[in-house]
Amino acid sequence: MPPRPDPSPLAGAGAPLAGLRVLELGHFVAAPFATRLLGDLGAEVIKVEPPGGDPVRQWGARHNGHAPWWSVHARNKRCIALDLKRPEAREIVLGLVRHCDAVVENFRPGQLEKLGLGAAAMKAARPDLVIARISGYGQDGPYRDRAAFGVIGEAIGGLRHLTDHAPGTSDLPPVRVGVSLGDSVAGIYAALGLVAALWRRDRRAPLSGPGCGGEAGGEAGRGAEVDVALTESVFSLLEGALPDYSTLGTIRQPSGGGIATAAPTNAYRARDGIWVLIAANSDPLFRRLAKLMGMPELVEDARFADNQARVRNVAELDALIGAWAARFDGRALEAVLAEADIPSTRAFTIADCAADPQFRARDMVREVEDPLHGPVLHPGVVPRIDGAVPPPRSTGPEIGADTAAVLRELLGMEKEAVAALQEAGVLRARG
Amino acid sequence: MPPRPDPSPLAGAGAPLAGLRVLELGHFVAAPFATRLLGDLGAEVIKVEPPGGDPVRQWGARHNGHAPWWSVHARNKRCIALDLKRPEAREIVLGLVRHCDAVVENFRPGQLEKLGLGAAAMKAARPDLVIARISGYGQDGPYRDRAAFGVIGEAIGGLRHLTDHAPGTSDLPPVRVGVSLGDSVAGIYAALGLVAALWRRDRRAPLSGPGCGGEAGGEAGRGAEVDVALTESVFSLLEGALPDYSTLGTIRQPSGGGIATAAPTNAYRARDGIWVLIAANSDPLFRRLAKLMGMPELVEDARFADNQARVRNVAELDALIGAWAARFDGRALEAVLAEADIPSTRAFTIADCAADPQFRARDMVREVEDPLHGPVLHPGVVPRIDGAVPPPRSTGPEIGADTAAVLRELLGMEKEAVAALQEAGVLRARG
Repeated sequence: MPPRPDPSPLAGAGAPLAGLRVLELGHFVAAPFATRLLGDLGAEVIKVEPPGGDPVRQWGARHNGHAPWWSVHARNKRCIALDLKRPEAREIVLGLVRHCDAVVENFRPGQLEKLGLGAAAMKAARPDLVIARISGYGQDGPYRDRAAFGVIGEAIGGLRHLTDHAPGTSDLPPVRVGVSLGDSVAGIYAALGLVAALWRRDRRAPLSGPGCGGEAGGEAGRGAEVDVALTESVFSLLEGALPDYSTLGTIRQPSGGGIATAAPTNAYRARDGIWVLIAANSDPLFRRLAKLMGMPELVEDARFADNQARVRNVAELDALIGAWAARFDGRALEAVLAEADIPSTRAFTIADCAADPQFRARDMVREVEDPLHGPVLHPGVVPRIDGAVPPPRSTGPEIGADTAAVLRELLGMEKEAVAALQEAGVLRARG
Repeated sequence: MPPRPDPSPLAGAGAPLAGLRVLELGHFVAAPFATRLLGDLGAEVIKVEPPGGDPVRQWGARHNGHAPWWSVHARNKRCIALDLKRPEAREIVLGLVRHCDAVVENFRPGQLEKLGLGAAAMKAARPDLVIARISGYGQDGPYRDRAAFGVIGEAIGGLRHLTDHAPGTSDLPPVRVGVSLGDSVAGIYAALGLVAALWRRDRRAPLSGPGCGGEAGGEAGRGAEVDVALTESVFSLLEGALPDYSTLGTIRQPSGGGIATAAPTNAYRARDGIWVLIAANSDPLFRRLAKLMGMPELVEDARFADNQARVRNVAELDALIGAWAARFDGRALEAVLAEADIPSTRAFTIADCAADPQFRARDMVREVEDPLHGPVLHPGVVPRIDGAVPPPRSTGPEIGADTAAVLRELLGMEKEAVAALQEAGVLRARG
């Protein structure tokens, strides 16, 4: 097994967030995803886990005893394990906060306060701290104490209702977007809010301003509390639905595989069962498609003469395209559509993504050596900044892998002290 | 009609991005959404549109001749109208770039270069510029020139395949997530990358460092190019799918309204057709649900004894819960589930979101006065920073509303010069 590289300070040198140190008090998806993004951009991340580990370590199928997701979810992080119910652990966390620029957490609102680790306690340790808090419903309001479940939050955010076949088309339930969308989007928003607050805290005055070039701006040194709700993160994606409703009284409805205001655009099934997306919803594209289908007369047909007509008669149109598509296997269908320059693609599975030349060329799919697994394919860094991005500095480590090193570096704690605290059940350290 | 407020510099005073000036060369969804988020956080945004306006102004149903979405999509922005094909307009843009910290654009790769407005030209005007570029496939790689359609990008990102009923369950096509998800997520990532690059550019050295308190860090003054692809933004949401595939060979499949690894969690239809989400996928929650259903014996049933068993027999279990749920109307079903403290909710329509007490309490749904519409409900600010957020400084204005004011303020251009350029068709100014 190759030795584990150390993702410690300055390892992200040159990357946009190099020099930033973030403490994660997170678990599951949202907060750990936020810090993963920050680590991808060069920040040093210290993740605090319970001695039993973040439950994600065991989610889904395992390889070599570990969830492969962990390799990605905790990459570029130093992992330390503490029992936060112990007062000694609380003191350690506050000691670390003193050395950190920011904290990201997704405990249920009020829970960190009960542990003596609320925003007030952390700010007392580090007055200019930026704290990003992620929760189901937000840190205040009448529902803040409700249990947060992703599927519930996505439904309250209005997305589940819209992710369905058109009313009356199917007896099946509206589908869940096939990923923990609300958690992930909340994580991205938390990262955005955190960096925005840091820009305010850390920036120099405008270069054109008076003083010694690097003079501090008016808000310099000001910390912040960032409050991200899963429900609100989802709700923020609804485009014009709210203003449309308030001015026109319209309640947006789902439209299945298509788009309510454009046609034809849908998924069509090829002979071998592969779904192929075809977006031919402009007059020139539709003309090309009709010709390709051997039915050039469709563009003269009053039912399909322009987008409005096509939207009105979309069921008939989709049936015609579907019947044509079903004459080809998926790959062949893709090929004839590409040849005719009509926007189209099969619905990629993860195998398709992994093999895609564009993802490969841009390092969005990259083989990484993981001491726990051997080679693992990792997704790349989004957003990409200044061209090519170096590979991850480390993969997700074992529980407590960095406890001793971090406590020594930041708190000056000797090996023996760490061992004593481990003995007492306050922390878990490895090696 | 009330006079339009001016969303100009320092109007976001105290907000995290107050003092930041961003130029948008955007259209449709992704880039305008990125700048909307930046404007929500206090940045001054100047949007450049063609004289005919951003097509979103006319998308969907209209109220008083304008798409209500525009009220939100262009809030806190100053809108100027230029014909970028004209050399005079190009000079104006480069003049504005000189006064801006950052640019956000979503032209097809290479198109701005053709207009003489590529990254090199903009950096010549402003060497420390941060440019965020959003495209379908990214700024390089073999597919960078392909036309970007949201539905195509979402399919290539792997999401369409996963947003469907389980294989073999339905003949209907996989559904589109009911919003322009790829565009919006790309927009959030672009905002994140932009602010991260600005933090590197603008920050002081650590306060503990040597020098005059505000000394510049090593990377101070360094601009950046942020490159966000729609496909990659979607692909970034796939959690463990890629590492699972590479280590175990598993290809993730869709699981309809449920979750592949937990049961019961799904949408169940009430008597009146309302879909109600129930997440009772832990042993204690399932026990409560079984009792509520009047079938406490289910927890002893070997088919449902633990989560693994319930996942194996999820179809039978969902049928039992579905039959029980169908005895209630939606509101009544919600009430009995809430009473039993089982995580649950109906799938919110936009009407439900608009009325939700938690969204209202946190200003996530707020009435805003719009000169073009009268009162309009606006979604709030995500992420929320430092508690309550002030209302928008302005709503989306008419085409060219700010052309004259911006060109006067930033370029010192007189009224007569603006009128002459308008006469010549280079720009469009109002009033």
